[in-house]
Amino acid sequence: MRSALYAGNSTIVVEDRPPIAPGPGQVQIAVAYTGICGTDLHILHGAMDHRVHTPQPIGHEMSGRIAALGPGVEDLTVGQPVTVMPLDWCGTCPACHAGHSHICHRLNFIGIDTAGAMQQRWNVAAKVVVALPPELPLSYAALVEPTAVAVHDVRRAGLQSGESAVVIGGGPVGVLIGLVARSAGAQVTILELDAHRRAVAEGLGLRTLDPAKQDVAAEVDAWTSHAGVAVAFEVSGSASGVDTAVQLLAVRGRLVVVGLHNQRREVDLFRFFWRELTMIGARVYERRDYDTAIDLLTRGIVPADALISRIEPLDNAAAAFDALRRGGNVMKVLIDCQEATA
Amino acid sequence: MRSALYAGNSTIVVEDRPPIAPGPGQVQIAVAYTGICGTDLHILHGAMDHRVHTPQPIGHEMSGRIAALGPGVEDLTVGQPVTVMPLDWCGTCPACHAGHSHICHRLNFIGIDTAGAMQQRWNVAAKVVVALPPELPLSYAALVEPTAVAVHDVRRAGLQSGESAVVIGGGPVGVLIGLVARSAGAQVTILELDAHRRAVAEGLGLRTLDPAKQDVAAEVDAWTSHAGVAVAFEVSGSASGVDTAVQLLAVRGRLVVVGLHNQRREVDLFRFFWRELTMIGARVYERRDYDTAIDLLTRGIVPADALISRIEPLDNAAAAFDALRRGGNVMKVLIDCQEATA
Repeated sequence: MRSALYAGNSTIVVEDRPPIAPGPGQVQIAVAYTGICGTDLHILHGAMDHRVHTPQPIGHEMSGRIAALGPGVEDLTVGQPVTVMPLDWCGTCPACHAGHSHICHRLNFIGIDTAGAMQQRWNVAAKVVVALPPELPLSYAALVEPTAVAVHDVRRAGLQSGESAVVIGGGPVGVLIGLVARSAGAQVTILELDAHRRAVAEGLGLRTLDPAKQDVAAEVDAWTSHAGVAVAFEVSGSASGVDTAVQLLAVRGRLVVVGLHNQRREVDLFRFFWRELTMIGARVYERRDYDTAIDLLTRGIVPADALISRIEPLDNAAAAFDALRRGGNVMKVLIDCQEATA
Repeated sequence: MRSALYAGNSTIVVEDRPPIAPGPGQVQIAVAYTGICGTDLHILHGAMDHRVHTPQPIGHEMSGRIAALGPGVEDLTVGQPVTVMPLDWCGTCPACHAGHSHICHRLNFIGIDTAGAMQQRWNVAAKVVVALPPELPLSYAALVEPTAVAVHDVRRAGLQSGESAVVIGGGPVGVLIGLVARSAGAQVTILELDAHRRAVAEGLGLRTLDPAKQDVAAEVDAWTSHAGVAVAFEVSGSASGVDTAVQLLAVRGRLVVVGLHNQRREVDLFRFFWRELTMIGARVYERRDYDTAIDLLTRGIVPADALISRIEPLDNAAAAFDALRRGGNVMKVLIDCQEATA
């Protein structure tokens, strides 16, 4: 079978590897599509070399069909459409005991800490498999994982119908947050520098602002009748994104930290005091977020097709990563891992 | 009547001023005791000169008795013991409309933005007067306002019975937070550098740690069985206090920003993401916090006498400020404003 491996040194290689029969409690999935996530780009850049054991297949946004069942696996059937919730927790740490196993102290994130889905056959523990409705196209289903991120972020925000929200950063996760927030009844504006990404968001009926050309503070002030927004999702991972969020929030507003900030950021804590703001960290998802994401994608409330810019065959994985790394007119890129097309 | 005025240039002067009859909707309070707050020291240092119109009586932690009623005032009687909730909101801004009038966009904080309680007779709007139970000594009642701050902070934390909490900074507000948190069923540890303040807290049965001499992270790790604390109250207003709070929090822990941070602070936002932490700004109080504070003081659950270091006559106000500014073996200092003793 073909497998796309991160080999270190900013390199993706595609090679043949022998498929392995699923072990006890495992299933083998014939992978259909695997999305390239921002985290996968971080891996390619070497930023996660302390976690990835090279050479290793990466990828954790996926869909496929059960190809084989290992010993002891019940409740799943060969041919069934599935995705994976790529979190493997210890069950014994304080986070797990407190009911927050998705942020387990010893979390194994499948596709980062262990082998991922960018291969034709993928063996995973049956417990991380999530069944899909047959009417959801498998290409759309590759967006369940990032949609679940957005669902989790919106849930962490405690977003209420009728509230105003800004999303700072209009890449795939930002637009998904916008769509999920709108489905929860919020009025949403996305701040994004890239014209193509703004056009995608506008095409989905989401209002956008260009922070490079528009006075965001004045626009939001007018929009919210001088109150400020109830919620700001910081998805950009930038220092200026944090400042913008804090500036735009209403009294008792909530800032959800979605983007990765690998540096400490200066934060105006006086403003947190003065306006009684709240900042909320949000990481991955819980099982109910997956269930909601599958529902939103199946009902078309999250229109996956509008977010999928390109589908590339597995053998072109290195070129697909390279194109995404260069940016420009792209949202989500999927790798087609099906055996007939690789 | 005697009145202690902030005159600018780090100066408190005490002088005679003619008492003025209360206007329509006002009452005149014969002030009994006025506490010196950290904010009053900030005023003395000139840090709030943009808000204080000199010369002006300051002070907002107080108790007294109604001395006279202005035209149109009902429901209050001469001689009745009272305190004041020193917040005067506009009623028309977005914060007021959203039900958060205590953090009104145009809040008049009485005692800062307008004349305060460090005088023998104080005229205030009847609407900011809060009745006191007759069994609560008036010296204790001067602590209603800072106790209400602590009640508000604990309520903003969403503190649950059985949770662990650290309070970073063991001055009057920090110790009050510790007492209120304990009354809510939390297990509390106070971090404080000053030996006298630690001794006061320990005397009240609160566990303390000395960050200069003890390994706080190791102590908290052992105390919480490696989970970290559920809640950290940052009362010190220091950069290191913020770092300590973020470091000590458990998965899904909450950091309450109580202290004033007049500079931007570097914050480890990755940790907020990774552990799904929450940071909550908390400012002043709402009326129900006042009611709870009065109840806690009246029942002795907050033992005011243990927190009152000294009571100084009004004519010694300048010396009292000076002693407090120099620090050392002091918690709360009250000014006795009663006419017989000034």
